[in-house]
Amino acid sequence: MRDIGTSALLTDFYQLTMLAAYHERGMTQEAVFEFFVRRLPDNRNFLIAAGLEQALDFLERFAFDAEELDWLAGLGRFRPDFLDWLAALRFTGTVEALPEGTPVFADEPLLRVVAPLPQAQVVETRLINLLHYQTLVASKAARVRLAAGDRLLVDFGLRRAHGAEAGMLSARASYLAGFDGTANTLAGLRYGIPVYGTMAHSFIQAHESELAAFEHFARVHPQATTWLIDTYDTEVAAQALVPLARRLAQEGIAVRAVRIDSGDLAAHACRVRAILDAGGLTGIMIFASGNLDEYAVARLLSERAPIDGFGVGTRMNVSADQPHLDCAYKLMEYAGRPRRKRSEGKATWPGRKQVYRRYDVNGRMRGDVLTVQDDTQEGEALLQPVMRDGRRLAPAPPLAELRQRTLAALEALPAHLRTLDPAPPYAVEIAPALRRLAAEVDAGRGG
Amino acid sequence: MRDIGTSALLTDFYQLTMLAAYHERGMTQEAVFEFFVRRLPDNRNFLIAAGLEQALDFLERFAFDAEELDWLAGLGRFRPDFLDWLAALRFTGTVEALPEGTPVFADEPLLRVVAPLPQAQVVETRLINLLHYQTLVASKAARVRLAAGDRLLVDFGLRRAHGAEAGMLSARASYLAGFDGTANTLAGLRYGIPVYGTMAHSFIQAHESELAAFEHFARVHPQATTWLIDTYDTEVAAQALVPLARRLAQEGIAVRAVRIDSGDLAAHACRVRAILDAGGLTGIMIFASGNLDEYAVARLLSERAPIDGFGVGTRMNVSADQPHLDCAYKLMEYAGRPRRKRSEGKATWPGRKQVYRRYDVNGRMRGDVLTVQDDTQEGEALLQPVMRDGRRLAPAPPLAELRQRTLAALEALPAHLRTLDPAPPYAVEIAPALRRLAAEVDAGRGG
Repeated sequence: MRDIGTSALLTDFYQLTMLAAYHERGMTQEAVFEFFVRRLPDNRNFLIAAGLEQALDFLERFAFDAEELDWLAGLGRFRPDFLDWLAALRFTGTVEALPEGTPVFADEPLLRVVAPLPQAQVVETRLINLLHYQTLVASKAARVRLAAGDRLLVDFGLRRAHGAEAGMLSARASYLAGFDGTANTLAGLRYGIPVYGTMAHSFIQAHESELAAFEHFARVHPQATTWLIDTYDTEVAAQALVPLARRLAQEGIAVRAVRIDSGDLAAHACRVRAILDAGGLTGIMIFASGNLDEYAVARLLSERAPIDGFGVGTRMNVSADQPHLDCAYKLMEYAGRPRRKRSEGKATWPGRKQVYRRYDVNGRMRGDVLTVQDDTQEGEALLQPVMRDGRRLAPAPPLAELRQRTLAALEALPAHLRTLDPAPPYAVEIAPALRRLAAEVDAGRGG
Repeated sequence: MRDIGTSALLTDFYQLTMLAAYHERGMTQEAVFEFFVRRLPDNRNFLIAAGLEQALDFLERFAFDAEELDWLAGLGRFRPDFLDWLAALRFTGTVEALPEGTPVFADEPLLRVVAPLPQAQVVETRLINLLHYQTLVASKAARVRLAAGDRLLVDFGLRRAHGAEAGMLSARASYLAGFDGTANTLAGLRYGIPVYGTMAHSFIQAHESELAAFEHFARVHPQATTWLIDTYDTEVAAQALVPLARRLAQEGIAVRAVRIDSGDLAAHACRVRAILDAGGLTGIMIFASGNLDEYAVARLLSERAPIDGFGVGTRMNVSADQPHLDCAYKLMEYAGRPRRKRSEGKATWPGRKQVYRRYDVNGRMRGDVLTVQDDTQEGEALLQPVMRDGRRLAPAPPLAELRQRTLAALEALPAHLRTLDPAPPYAVEIAPALRRLAAEVDAGRGG
């Protein structure tokens, strides 16, 4: 059975009922769809675009297989000529997009698809599924990076991510947004992300004593030992490990860190730091985990907790304070005519658009202009061609390079957007040319 | 490349560093782990156990493949004899579990694994990943079912679910918890869930007029037409469709429903119902969608909105008001000795446990007893053997049967738990035998 993530059937059934109608009527003229976020959540001052590489992978491989087509035939809802046409359907369109790691705001397209209507329509569900989730997580993870300064950040969230792919894509999106690594081993293999791992409480509990567990682990992993010290009593463990760590050091085994996973992390970290320092173990780092997010990291650091690194899991991987974005993939033009949806609260800017970004003399972002594609404005044009005739224009950039680009972009954010508190919105101006187009579409109705 | 969901490497790296230590020391005696939820969220009066079938699939197929082993070798962190041993590692243990669809409460095990320590340890991450997410979604979806009465409920959430697998598993978990179907086509193929689909706004926009789009769709899908009527103006569309629907009816094409996806759904539904009824179209159902969850459904029905069915998406699939559960998979016994974690706020009940559930004369649940496995209590013993020697004891029950069982279980909930508002907790008594065991473990420390 093929990987579910590559299945063309991983789509809303209405895509297929619509396609049957388009096929029957020969409605295969050029359509333009754009993916964008309608509104930024109150607790996000910016979003980080992510997921483009997986979206392009999906488009390149798009095809129904025999099992899927047989199953569709068995539903009795579709004519054989439509199913034959579906069997041959591939994505042959053009894609323009923001580079991954780009800060993005409401109404700004992250991605534009230009293709015959059925092709552009049928890929909607999975494109949203891929772009929404990675953008959601990258945006959350970037906040954790801003809160943590340059401390070590490791993704711990696979177990409570929403399924296997969420575990993989959140490892990728968080690394892209500035994390240092992940505990998700398969993300190490598939994406080349540095993997981190220590021990669970069960490891301690399976041994006759905590110290026996510590020594055992250090001897098996002499180059990379982090001891989990909160299974029974954190400070008792810290006191007890000092002579052991010193003895191991004499044998050339340097314990790298201790991990604290429960209780008042700041208070424990202060006491543990004092114990380790008094024992001459100033080189052992303190790593904290347990229900962390950007708010908890900021609070711990504001309390001057001597914590050198954080394992951040569930709350980042599910973007707990904002587990979804109000995003859409909307028809902007069909058969050469701009289109616009006018549903209450969901009206869209019509046509093919471009975003121009302006910077001040220090390289800080100072405002965007959203306009029609053939308008020209001052600033950097953000949407760039990435696919033509259904093929990528360039190989995927290395993930580590995207990560560096994101870190630089975070530096370029206006200072008021870099705080965790809600800030006045970033300036995104709607250019006169785009306002004119919207008025023309409304006047012509058809829309 | 194998499906990511079946990869043994889809695990926290610490599982492998711990396994290397267990292997080196021959720590392969029998371990007992249980998966449970530590605390119910404030906004959940009960949870619905789900995900067991996927967990058992995972355990039956568990194996590292050559690519994964090569990659691990390349890390330089593991000895060749350990990697050889890993290559032969399979899951050969025993599993007991609650049947899917069973209401479950804090501290009650949903699943117990009994296996040699390394086997029981290495499956932790993915077991949590599978059980957590489906239990989360089934618990949310059951609330939507309670709010909706017997109205049609369709899962619309694939696009904003967190990745491909979340889209699949939330279709399954919501159907199991009482939904009628899903828009996720692949979930139709893989799980046999009824699929539903209508049309998107883009379908309307791609036509020269709304009515042209309506007629076109109805002629292609004469047996199953739902018209989306809110692209421009909902009531204008409702007025305009009356003569068309009557004309089509004369040709034997019966329009089944209209869908409203924006604005004040109750007000629109009332006006649209009046328009349809005045036009003699009393048989056309009204289907509503757009940012719905159990609270919105309850509000709409309390306003007597004439809505016959709901498409519920994002907020259910990401469990928006509670996107994660405080759950754990913990070592309860190793080498014949019960174990207990005592970390602050995370202490666990030790040993192998059983849950007895008691019912009143009307078949309503009246309280549970949590006790040690070899204690006997009045009531129904909820944990049942499902796997021995790494093989299922019975084939997977049909999903439709699990759904019926869940609907019956929702009927059996005490009335005060069936409301959406936080209710006084359901009675889960800790039996004296379990309290004694915990005290013994504490007294013995090692624990």
